[in-house]
Amino acid sequence: MAAPMPIVKVAAICGSLRKASYHAGLIRTAIELSKSIEGIGIEYVDISALPMLNTDLEVDGTFPASVEAFRQKILESDGFLIASPEYNFSITAPLKNAIDWASRPPNVWADKTAAIVSAGGSFGGGLSQFHLRQTAVFLDIHILNKPLFVLNAFQPPAKFDDDGNLIDPQAKERLNTVLVALKEFTLRLKQAK
Amino acid sequence: MAAPMPIVKVAAICGSLRKASYHAGLIRTAIELSKSIEGIGIEYVDISALPMLNTDLEVDGTFPASVEAFRQKILESDGFLIASPEYNFSITAPLKNAIDWASRPPNVWADKTAAIVSAGGSFGGGLSQFHLRQTAVFLDIHILNKPLFVLNAFQPPAKFDDDGNLIDPQAKERLNTVLVALKEFTLRLKQAK
Amino acid sequence: MAAPMPIVKVAAICGSLRKASYHAGLIRTAIELSKSIEGIGIEYVDISALPMLNTDLEVDGTFPASVEAFRQKILESDGFLIASPEYNFSITAPLKNAIDWASRPPNVWADKTAAIVSAGGSFGGGLSQFHLRQTAVFLDIHILNKPLFVLNAFQPPAKFDDDGNLIDPQAKERLNTVLVALKEFTLRLKQAK
Amino acid sequence: MAAPMPIVKVAAICGSLRKASYHAGLIRTAIELSKSIEGIGIEYVDISALPMLNTDLEVDGTFPASVEAFRQKILESDGFLIASPEYNFSITAPLKNAIDWASRPPNVWADKTAAIVSAGGSFGGGLSQFHLRQTAVFLDIHILNKPLFVLNAFQPPAKFDDDGNLIDPQAKERLNTVLVALKEFTLRLKQAK
Repeated sequence: MAAPMPIVKVAAICGSLRKASYHAGLIRTAIELSKSIEGIGIEYVDISALPMLNTDLEVDGTFPASVEAFRQKILESDGFLIASPEYNFSITAPLKNAIDWASRPPNVWADKTAAIVSAGGSFGGGLSQFHLRQTAVFLDIHILNKPLFVLNAFQPPAKFDDDGNLIDPQAKERLNTVLVALKEFTLRLKQAK
Repeated sequence: MAAPMPIVKVAAICGSLRKASYHAGLIRTAIELSKSIEGIGIEYVDISALPMLNTDLEVDGTFPASVEAFRQKILESDGFLIASPEYNFSITAPLKNAIDWASRPPNVWADKTAAIVSAGGSFGGGLSQFHLRQTAVFLDIHILNKPLFVLNAFQPPAKFDDDGNLIDPQAKERLNTVLVALKEFTLRLKQAK
Repeated sequence: MAAPMPIVKVAAICGSLRKASYHAGLIRTAIELSKSIEGIGIEYVDISALPMLNTDLEVDGTFPASVEAFRQKILESDGFLIASPEYNFSITAPLKNAIDWASRPPNVWADKTAAIVSAGGSFGGGLSQFHLRQTAVFLDIHILNKPLFVLNAFQPPAKFDDDGNLIDPQAKERLNTVLVALKEFTLRLKQAK
Repeated sequence: MAAPMPIVKVAAICGSLRKASYHAGLIRTAIELSKSIEGIGIEYVDISALPMLNTDLEVDGTFPASVEAFRQKILESDGFLIASPEYNFSITAPLKNAIDWASRPPNVWADKTAAIVSAGGSFGGGLSQFHLRQTAVFLDIHILNKPLFVLNAFQPPAKFDDDGNLIDPQAKERLNTVLVALKEFTLRLKQAK
């Protein structure tokens, strides 16, 4: 009997807290798309309840409850789908905050994989991705090089509806290739460990 | 009668929220030092009460009260002293959060000056400075190029005491040159506007 | 009698060596446009003859002849117009080479101004600009924050003809605003020195 | 009979052209050290003869002879050891030049691994590494996250002799861990392809 195919467990994190966020929309679509991709499972992990990082909140080696719960989700994952908006040419505070909490010793990101997806104006959110990649070096996250997913949200045809749902078929197709690539890259690194 | 010398008004912002922060210490020392520099006034502006950025909190064009107060302080300043720690090779969430709130239209940072000071491990906090500089391009903040102030906090002799006070005379002297340079650069840009 | 208006002397540098370079085209157009802007003069400075940087070529404190000539042009300028292509998400070798030669002690870039203009694919050349800005911190060049000039060369309508000439009226208009802003920023910093 | 252990073929590239370069010294030491590590072979690949990048030099789909030879070396390698100096807070022109030549279609860097090692002043050459990493995203090179190898060349004890030979035992030990990690990371990605 063949061994069952391993499932790559992906935690999806959204760098924007607003309700109609395009980045939340990218994650919703990714979760939908993943149901048709064998061997990957994506779970949305909410970061909105995390307190602002302050290491004085770590008492006797324990973290606030919301931080502990978040860290546990990261620890149990094989890889990450990070929806990263670009605010002022860099990453958002809520995203950096979540990343930093999970990096506190022991760093629960280590030796895992990630794909970053962004939407936005001129650079399509891409500048945030490069700052995130620099952080990932310290955290020892292996970020997928290709395909790069940046999406100019304001060029016709419409990419999102008013609720932040991704409605552009071409962008959906590109997002699907990101998920397949993340699965394959994660398996390459995981099986050979 | 000669016109009184203009006073460069500087808002000092600390990117770390912990009590014994080295960066809070850098700001305390900067305020002390500024008392002996003619033509500059530094005021510490607390960012710890700001909510995590979420543009859904902007209702009918108004910001939450703590955000309004913070934006007003930025608007009234000529320049900024930003104490920027490096977390995971980038800027901190509390600092990015404050920056992003004050960038919301109308951007109250525009056409003002700043100096960044950092302390930390291997790179002395310097990597955060370069990410902050990229953000400053969008915000149209003119950041001082020289002197670069990064401080390796862990190499002997001791740089800070246990409460985060800067105790190294050489570092204090370097910090003083930053303040003088910030004053002069701000005056150059302001008087010629 | 009124003093004659000072002329801001700008050296224009092209980061690509190919004949039909879009960036050479941007500079040609900038020079044309500058003739209608009072108080600015732009001179193209060729970098194609510079040897690859190797400090072993500095003998008894003198540089190779082409390097000396280039350094002299930089020294005589008030500001710079840098046409910076993006190769592989960063700056080009010919441009970095020119920059590094002129940075050798004494650094002839110091305390001058620059505007960067780029054209290209997805990011419109913008990623090269941010790497260049990091280098400018060390060199003490004051780079204009706004307007950011990146140009997606491949989106309709056509931006360049086959010889690399800028043909898009809207892009020309934007380029003109860069030149005016460079002139004004340079005067602000220069007059107040 | 067991299959012979695969040998990870590494091409070593030096970003400085000067004779007594510390970075050439790092590569010499790495080659020495590699002789005691089973399963890795490092070959020094000289980049000093490459012409400055100019795509006009590509005629009928062929590159200049020195470029063809360099591209062939890259193509035959499994991974790279890049000795990257920091000039003016970024990468050097000779290194960027070599990288760009080998990126011309078909990109011969794709889906291979690399480790970067640097020595220098304040940041120990580290700022060049982050710019190189951004380029590597486009080239699809998988760069080792850990261990980070930056070396402050000017702090006691002496790290290099006058000929650029690495003489510090601790730095040699750290360099050895980089080579072992590069071998293991390359095997993980290669075997699972």
